[in-house]
Amino acid sequence: MTFDAATPDGSNGSLKSAISPDGVPALDETYRVPARCGVAVRIKKHQLIEVQNTHGTQVCDFWAFCDPDHQEFLSMAHTRTSLSSVFPKVGDQIVSNVRRPMFEITEDTSPGVHDTLLSCCDINRYKILGCTDYHDNCTDNLRMAMIAIALKAPKIPDPFNLWMNIPIAPDGKTAFEPTVCKPKDTIKLSALCDAIVVMSACPQDMNAINGRDGLPTELHFRVLG
Amino acid sequence: MTFDAATPDGSNGSLKSAISPDGVPALDETYRVPARCGVAVRIKKHQLIEVQNTHGTQVCDFWAFCDPDHQEFLSMAHTRTSLSSVFPKVGDQIVSNVRRPMFEITEDTSPGVHDTLLSCCDINRYKILGCTDYHDNCTDNLRMAMIAIALKAPKIPDPFNLWMNIPIAPDGKTAFEPTVCKPKDTIKLSALCDAIVVMSACPQDMNAINGRDGLPTELHFRVLG
Repeated sequence: MTFDAATPDGSNGSLKSAISPDGVPALDETYRVPARCGVAVRIKKHQLIEVQNTHGTQVCDFWAFCDPDHQEFLSMAHTRTSLSSVFPKVGDQIVSNVRRPMFEITEDTSPGVHDTLLSCCDINRYKILGCTDYHDNCTDNLRMAMIAIALKAPKIPDPFNLWMNIPIAPDGKTAFEPTVCKPKDTIKLSALCDAIVVMSACPQDMNAINGRDGLPTELHFRVLG
Repeated sequence: MTFDAATPDGSNGSLKSAISPDGVPALDETYRVPARCGVAVRIKKHQLIEVQNTHGTQVCDFWAFCDPDHQEFLSMAHTRTSLSSVFPKVGDQIVSNVRRPMFEITEDTSPGVHDTLLSCCDINRYKILGCTDYHDNCTDNLRMAMIAIALKAPKIPDPFNLWMNIPIAPDGKTAFEPTVCKPKDTIKLSALCDAIVVMSACPQDMNAINGRDGLPTELHFRVLG
């Protein structure tokens, strides 16, 4: 079977998550990313996107595709190379696969623990963890959020995992830990180009990244002009 | 301009690097990856590929696409997630974007310092570093090595950077350091599926990763039956 970036392996509410037919937001309006689902939003250069960790325990997988060329996308590997760091922080620019700055992190009320190392979860991740039925996953949420605004995911980039707490030991070993933020912590990113942003309220409930109780929750976001 | 994964931004000897018209190797024959160039090789499940750091100071960007579905490729982000480590070592399996084990590292005579974090260099990397003329780069070497065996790079995956020494400080900051291996150190990878492997003798001569003298050198490899 050929790998197909655009087609989900199952479905959930992300298919009906569109904030408008084409993903264009009403400025300053607060939108919800339902628990375990993904939402896409179009953002223009110079606008700001603010993502809120509503309950404080939730990881947000964050992707961005340049508009109109969706083959250019936010790349964690190029960002790490550009920043000489695995942890982007306020004042840093995060870049695309051709090293174009796509966003600047302008504000972060959390302690700034975000992950750039790990892939988004997918159906195979949950099979490996023991699931026998379909499990909501961020890869499918990305695909469905794009479909919901009449687009196709051109690929599955590695996400910027907001608030995901993946400590790295001196020997390179990583761990899956709960977020270190508090309810209503927000991060603001200033768009340096037009982009389609997709956010997934990660449905991972088989390790501690969304809290030791394994209860994925909602997120909120708004676009500021 | 639309990003095109397959088309190089310039050219070098990689275009004439084919070890055979279709990249099929003669088993046990030692092949050369010329300094600053890339070479592609077809490897079958159960074969081993041995890569040699001929002069001890050279980084090898290593990519693999599953055969026949080149949309499935060796993924560093999925590998880090699978291993809970940023440093794959002997006995570890490195996996694809659908988490299929593609290779097992069966032997490594070096101290085992390899990088999974950084993107391959490209024309934009060298522009940012101050180059005004074309600079050989691993992204183009990948594209040209594929063209040399009558294929097209379907994408530019993040590479497994053999021998690349990118230490990570406790605060997440990374550095570009010389290799810690000795001449003729080898790494052996056992193929767990059919694959197209591409290796690039990284032409980076503007930082210390290929030695403080900034002199990229050749590599050698062979496929064992």
